[in-house]
Amino acid sequence: MDIFFLGTGSGMPAKLRNVTSIALKLLEERGTIWLFDVGEATQHQILHTSIKPRRIEKIFITHLHGDHIYGLPGLLSSRSFQGGESEVTVYGPKGIKEYIQVSLALSQSYLKYPLKVIEIDEGVIFKDEQFTVEARLLEHGIPSYGYRIVEQDRPGTLLADKLQEEGVQPGPIFRKIKNGETVLLEDGRVIEPDKFLGPSQKGRIVTILGDTRFCDNARKLAKDADFLIHEATFSKGEEQLAFDYFHSTTHQAAKIAQQAGCKQLCLTHISSRYDRQAWLELVGEAKEVFPNTDISEDFKEFHIPLR
Amino acid sequence: MDIFFLGTGSGMPAKLRNVTSIALKLLEERGTIWLFDVGEATQHQILHTSIKPRRIEKIFITHLHGDHIYGLPGLLSSRSFQGGESEVTVYGPKGIKEYIQVSLALSQSYLKYPLKVIEIDEGVIFKDEQFTVEARLLEHGIPSYGYRIVEQDRPGTLLADKLQEEGVQPGPIFRKIKNGETVLLEDGRVIEPDKFLGPSQKGRIVTILGDTRFCDNARKLAKDADFLIHEATFSKGEEQLAFDYFHSTTHQAAKIAQQAGCKQLCLTHISSRYDRQAWLELVGEAKEVFPNTDISEDFKEFHIPLR
Ligand SMILES: [Zn+2]
Ligand SMILES: [Zn+2]
Repeated sequence: MDIFFLGTGSGMPAKLRNVTSIALKLLEERGTIWLFDVGEATQHQILHTSIKPRRIEKIFITHLHGDHIYGLPGLLSSRSFQGGESEVTVYGPKGIKEYIQVSLALSQSYLKYPLKVIEIDEGVIFKDEQFTVEARLLEHGIPSYGYRIVEQDRPGTLLADKLQEEGVQPGPIFRKIKNGETVLLEDGRVIEPDKFLGPSQKGRIVTILGDTRFCDNARKLAKDADFLIHEATFSKGEEQLAFDYFHSTTHQAAKIAQQAGCKQLCLTHISSRYDRQAWLELVGEAKEVFPNTDISEDFKEFHIPLR
Repeated sequence: MDIFFLGTGSGMPAKLRNVTSIALKLLEERGTIWLFDVGEATQHQILHTSIKPRRIEKIFITHLHGDHIYGLPGLLSSRSFQGGESEVTVYGPKGIKEYIQVSLALSQSYLKYPLKVIEIDEGVIFKDEQFTVEARLLEHGIPSYGYRIVEQDRPGTLLADKLQEEGVQPGPIFRKIKNGETVLLEDGRVIEPDKFLGPSQKGRIVTILGDTRFCDNARKLAKDADFLIHEATFSKGEEQLAFDYFHSTTHQAAKIAQQAGCKQLCLTHISSRYDRQAWLELVGEAKEVFPNTDISEDFKEFHIPLR
């Protein structure tokens, strides 16, 4: 599980930072990639990475501002040209369906794969045996969602040797124990799975927020997250400006990470008025509140280790 | 008057060529820039040039395929952010209005300048004292226009010395003669403007075509052009493929230039399956038919000299 930043700027593309797109690489977990936002030229950024568009399985749109969606029609079309055949599901606020449909229809782009577009409300928007994704509204003037991706806990590895010592042979019983079921043997003995499984693997939590003011739902989405991505369009001291423009400061992002008990924070949506030197200062400001803070850069990758 | 290629590829962005956009720089003539097509990331390409988005006055869209329009909403929005206040007019096929309106409205992008969108038919679509623009339909499966930009002839410079020798003093009479009017002096003499004007300056002709098969209207639009931009998605010998996919070969582009009596041809819409070495071969193929041929490259500029 890795976070790969494809675009980390704010508002408009700039030489050092493209507009927003974040890839959650789940290659080991499910052989796929989930994208969060698709600013213009996200497909161009992807050209310079090892990301295969056909591996993109889900796309989560935080909000409909142009710097978060204008790359979507191009990415979807090119994925088809490039041989993508597996289904893609796009999740996003009301309006995303019309945007995609009109763009693809007028440009006569016919996708060779099934495309599902789901206009979401708050709550659990996706759940399978591996992951749950929960969405909540943030504060950005227009509907802007934050996403909390929770990996399911995994049962521990089967202690096969120990089972065989008890005279249990590999087969259906092994599978039941592996799945956490209590098994009654033919000889009347009861096998409790806990005794024959290693420690269970706690699932990881990644929280990726759309543009937002400092707000409660950001904190809720970020609760105990291994990795929090929070915007920091303004620097410390500019709280009034941030409030007026529905954005956050470095300090506010750090406060969310601290109050939510996150393990790691990464600032993003960095304005082009900050140069490389200023990036260090921005991180410094956040670290005053939450030490384990980084700042995103285009093409920067972060590994999210097992718990 | 200069042609600046912002994107010269076909279908999808590639590392060496972005999708289509061409700037006609009319900085000396009218202090503005006209764009032809706006593929995705055209605004990103512009970041690496001296082009000021606020100088963009007109945008001509050849056809609605994604590789020719997906950069339009972003370019229009960013121009507003960057302080563009003067009006922009977009010309294009039916559907361009809905595409722009839906994209801007859903993303809540409010432009700070007036935007006019004109869905064109064949014929003269623009005319002022400097330029006439004529559009004709090409053959591309969907409506695809070619544009012929004709600079008006300019009257020669006033031979002021010669007029003063005749006893005519600078003032209203000078202006009338400059405008080509015959003037009756108070003493009864008639001043014919031809005798007091230098040679008139013939206007230049630039022809920029959308994606197309080899076709008659391409030839008509290119008649006597100083500079013809013609697509060459396929190479010589692939005429059947070109026909099937509604595109042209290098040879066909050169034939149009030759039959239309153009001065210079530039091939564009080059597929990413051709590498740098192959580009030379493509030009070579066209030169067999029309020697004054070049191949476009992203960021390549061509000056169009006075006649
Ligand atoms: Zn944004
Ligand atoms: Zn094209």
